[in-house]
Amino acid sequence: MSTTPTTSEGAVPDAVLAAFRAYERALADNDLAALADAFVEGAGALRGDAAGLLVGSEQIAAFRGARGEPPRRTVRELHARALGPDHVALVSVNEPAAGGAGLVTQVWRHCPDGRWRIAVAQVAAPAPAADPRIWRAVGHPLVAATGSGPLDGASVAVKDLFAVAGFAVGAGNPAYLAESRPAAEHAPAVRVLLDAGAELRGIARTDEFAYSVAGANPHYGAPPNPYAPLHLPGGSSSGPASAVAMGHAEIGLGTDTAGSIRVPASHQGLWGLRTTHGTVSRHGLLPLAPSFDTVGWLTRDPGLLARAARVSLPAGSGTASADRSYAVCPAVLELAQPSARAAFTVAIESWTRGGLLPAPRVISLPDPDAAFAAFRTVQAAEAWRSHGAWVRDHPDALGADVAARFAWASSVTAEQEAEARGALAVVRAQIEDVLEDSVLLSPTVTAPAPPRSADAAHLDAARTATITLTCLAAITGRPALSVPLLRADGAPLGLSLIGPRHTDLDLVARGAALQAPAATS
Amino acid sequence: MSTTPTTSEGAVPDAVLAAFRAYERALADNDLAALADAFVEGAGALRGDAAGLLVGSEQIAAFRGARGEPPRRTVRELHARALGPDHVALVSVNEPAAGGAGLVTQVWRHCPDGRWRIAVAQVAAPAPAADPRIWRAVGHPLVAATGSGPLDGASVAVKDLFAVAGFAVGAGNPAYLAESRPAAEHAPAVRVLLDAGAELRGIARTDEFAYSVAGANPHYGAPPNPYAPLHLPGGSSSGPASAVAMGHAEIGLGTDTAGSIRVPASHQGLWGLRTTHGTVSRHGLLPLAPSFDTVGWLTRDPGLLARAARVSLPAGSGTASADRSYAVCPAVLELAQPSARAAFTVAIESWTRGGLLPAPRVISLPDPDAAFAAFRTVQAAEAWRSHGAWVRDHPDALGADVAARFAWASSVTAEQEAEARGALAVVRAQIEDVLEDSVLLSPTVTAPAPPRSADAAHLDAARTATITLTCLAAITGRPALSVPLLRADGAPLGLSLIGPRHTDLDLVARGAALQAPAATS
Repeated sequence: MSTTPTTSEGAVPDAVLAAFRAYERALADNDLAALADAFVEGAGALRGDAAGLLVGSEQIAAFRGARGEPPRRTVRELHARALGPDHVALVSVNEPAAGGAGLVTQVWRHCPDGRWRIAVAQVAAPAPAADPRIWRAVGHPLVAATGSGPLDGASVAVKDLFAVAGFAVGAGNPAYLAESRPAAEHAPAVRVLLDAGAELRGIARTDEFAYSVAGANPHYGAPPNPYAPLHLPGGSSSGPASAVAMGHAEIGLGTDTAGSIRVPASHQGLWGLRTTHGTVSRHGLLPLAPSFDTVGWLTRDPGLLARAARVSLPAGSGTASADRSYAVCPAVLELAQPSARAAFTVAIESWTRGGLLPAPRVISLPDPDAAFAAFRTVQAAEAWRSHGAWVRDHPDALGADVAARFAWASSVTAEQEAEARGALAVVRAQIEDVLEDSVLLSPTVTAPAPPRSADAAHLDAARTATITLTCLAAITGRPALSVPLLRADGAPLGLSLIGPRHTDLDLVARGAALQAPAATS
Repeated sequence: MSTTPTTSEGAVPDAVLAAFRAYERALADNDLAALADAFVEGAGALRGDAAGLLVGSEQIAAFRGARGEPPRRTVRELHARALGPDHVALVSVNEPAAGGAGLVTQVWRHCPDGRWRIAVAQVAAPAPAADPRIWRAVGHPLVAATGSGPLDGASVAVKDLFAVAGFAVGAGNPAYLAESRPAAEHAPAVRVLLDAGAELRGIARTDEFAYSVAGANPHYGAPPNPYAPLHLPGGSSSGPASAVAMGHAEIGLGTDTAGSIRVPASHQGLWGLRTTHGTVSRHGLLPLAPSFDTVGWLTRDPGLLARAARVSLPAGSGTASADRSYAVCPAVLELAQPSARAAFTVAIESWTRGGLLPAPRVISLPDPDAAFAAFRTVQAAEAWRSHGAWVRDHPDALGADVAARFAWASSVTAEQEAEARGALAVVRAQIEDVLEDSVLLSPTVTAPAPPRSADAAHLDAARTATITLTCLAAITGRPALSVPLLRADGAPLGLSLIGPRHTDLDLVARGAALQAPAATS
């Protein structure tokens, strides 16, 4: 490494250049103690990179402990700028051993103990060809539009469960992908978007077989969540959601069996629509649990969501009804964390006060826990019917979380399934009786996205709570919209609208008429 | 925008926060005067982003003038850190309107006129799904390996001239791509790499029809050159070269008709091999000028280049010869710019002094300008034969530079072609007579990469000078290696070794035995 700065301005002490060199050595050695000591202590320290901004030395140290070996790099240029007697900015261009160029801006501080430490740093490493956590394949476009229409110029991230001509379906699992054959033609849900003028940006990641709502694929990594960088993206339509949130694509084409569109929409501040069950073709779509599987979309914008829905849904999917009422169910709201419940309540009050929403009637739905228990049993039985043979033949292919779920699914007996189906039929009828033509309002999920560092027990509890809420739409086959208008604990949270069957477009219009409430946390 | 910082440390004057807000407004308005005035004047100012580091207010202002509208963004978080009385670090997280999150670190300075201005800034915008200047399509992998061997684990960026099963060939032109049909099978040059264990990372950009050495495709933009950020990448194998330089892929599969592998190798500090004409199959490769078209590779590493060459070339392509001599030709060296010639001369002297290279004999080759004139006439006649019909049918499809070249190619008469072929045969025989079994040494090109801002006249002059040097290998069909060991004017420059036909592997071994000379500029 050069010992002389490429350019220098003001009085730059040798000691800060020596500290810079020692820091580069500590990086090369991954000397965590030296690296931690190189930053100032306390809440003031800042370190940002493409993954987000870490505030305070505690967050910075946790990041270092979690990331493994830092990439090797050599410094190509070093520019030093004195900022008064006690601070120096050092800006360096580096060449990572793996190629490309990196850029680092550091503000060094002369500390009371006489040492120079980093107070503020921004680090840019070369971006990969494409983010493998989001994308399996991507192009400009990967597949061109086949027509022109309301989706002209929009790009689509398709979940790796849909047939795309010339590509195999991977289902979020590399062993499955390796045995999969290229599709001869597009799934109709893909084709209809291309016919309407959209182009395919790429094939995006999913949780394995869509049997999760975490968005933490063990093979490819958890996709980023730009609107809550330290939190998970949500799944199973994690790749399409992150692609849309990151601005890589405008439309995410996903599936929602138990919440797989609405959960990532809520976690990443996106619009997400689960369609009325059975209305959008599932031909060319890898099933999970056909009684509940639906196709839907994620967007940053309600207008585009409405256009994608309109070209994909059958006519008559959006009959408006001026006297359709809204409903809330206290037992459902009780499922949510206090911060999420508060955000929801504040928003509803603000909208009703402002005349954007009629006051919702208060209803009483069947016990959510019992409904969830019946739902998950039927879902598991169908999931095992869809993929049990493959899972049994590939005992080590799945990540621990989804493997455990399939293991439980394999244990569901025919009697248990029949009993659960019976229970579900009763619950469905009860819900329909109570809801009638109303739109049910709730937070989309019970809490904002779990931290990326969450352990398995935390994720499992979050999953149960989440699906207890989201399975209401699955049980009834009703369409459900997640609207990105709430915030809780400083992170995005969706507002859920569950409408009567075949009112998908009306639901989007109702969501679009709302605006961020005045008071949010 | 929030007026209160999210976190703050020390005495942060309101005036600097006001200056920050004014700067964000100026960005939103693209108010170039206000933006320029927001930075300190002089050589000390620094502004870095993913494209590189700008040093001094002049470079920063030139960048602003060239980039067009800055992306719209809203500030989500603002962290203020006082750095003594006259400097403040402001770190902001923003949300671009197009999605994702951005990060900006600024060091503001209290200037003598009382104003606060930015002395140092690093700006990170969300990366696109994939860089469209480098990639047409990319995957993890886009096409899996079909075997296992010496290239296990290596990824390939293939120039968009080769058949890849399931994908159409685009040749760097969107109109051509739109009419092109997906290939039924891989070109043999692609297949042999996959059979040897490599996987296809993606399909990378090329100058239109490979008829350029600039690397400035007008439809997709000039790919980045990480080792000389303000300079062009070189072409026509620009995409594979940038992909390798950026660390997106390990092997760039390209073509070299008149220098299209060696020029980007030289400009981007890569290893690049043009193979002996006729030895690597050109089946499934879109031709430009078949008398000169060759297949070759770009890598960051000579070992991998040797392995890619070994699996692709016929047996007997690397007979070593201990008594093979080296040669230099003063008239050829005279073509180079003084800085390039000096770098070359210093290196040769260093290697001969150090015993790494026997002293080259001095030879006299035929007049390079006459050779170039004959070469370009035959190349043009063949290029028109390859693509003239398409070009004539698509009068507005090509960028100005390549369109002008094809227009000239269309004017070459049969008599001119025949005369040029005769002249070339004479020149070829003369070169072979003089060179015999020797390896000709020279700078790969006459100068480092032209600036990205270079005008058409500058690029045309650079092209003529470059090809006058690189066409020696094309005329003789000899293999040519560019070794990334020179530097001139602070940028990479290749060392060229042109060896006897069918000594490709020996040439790579000879290049690998050299090391960066002690003294370079």
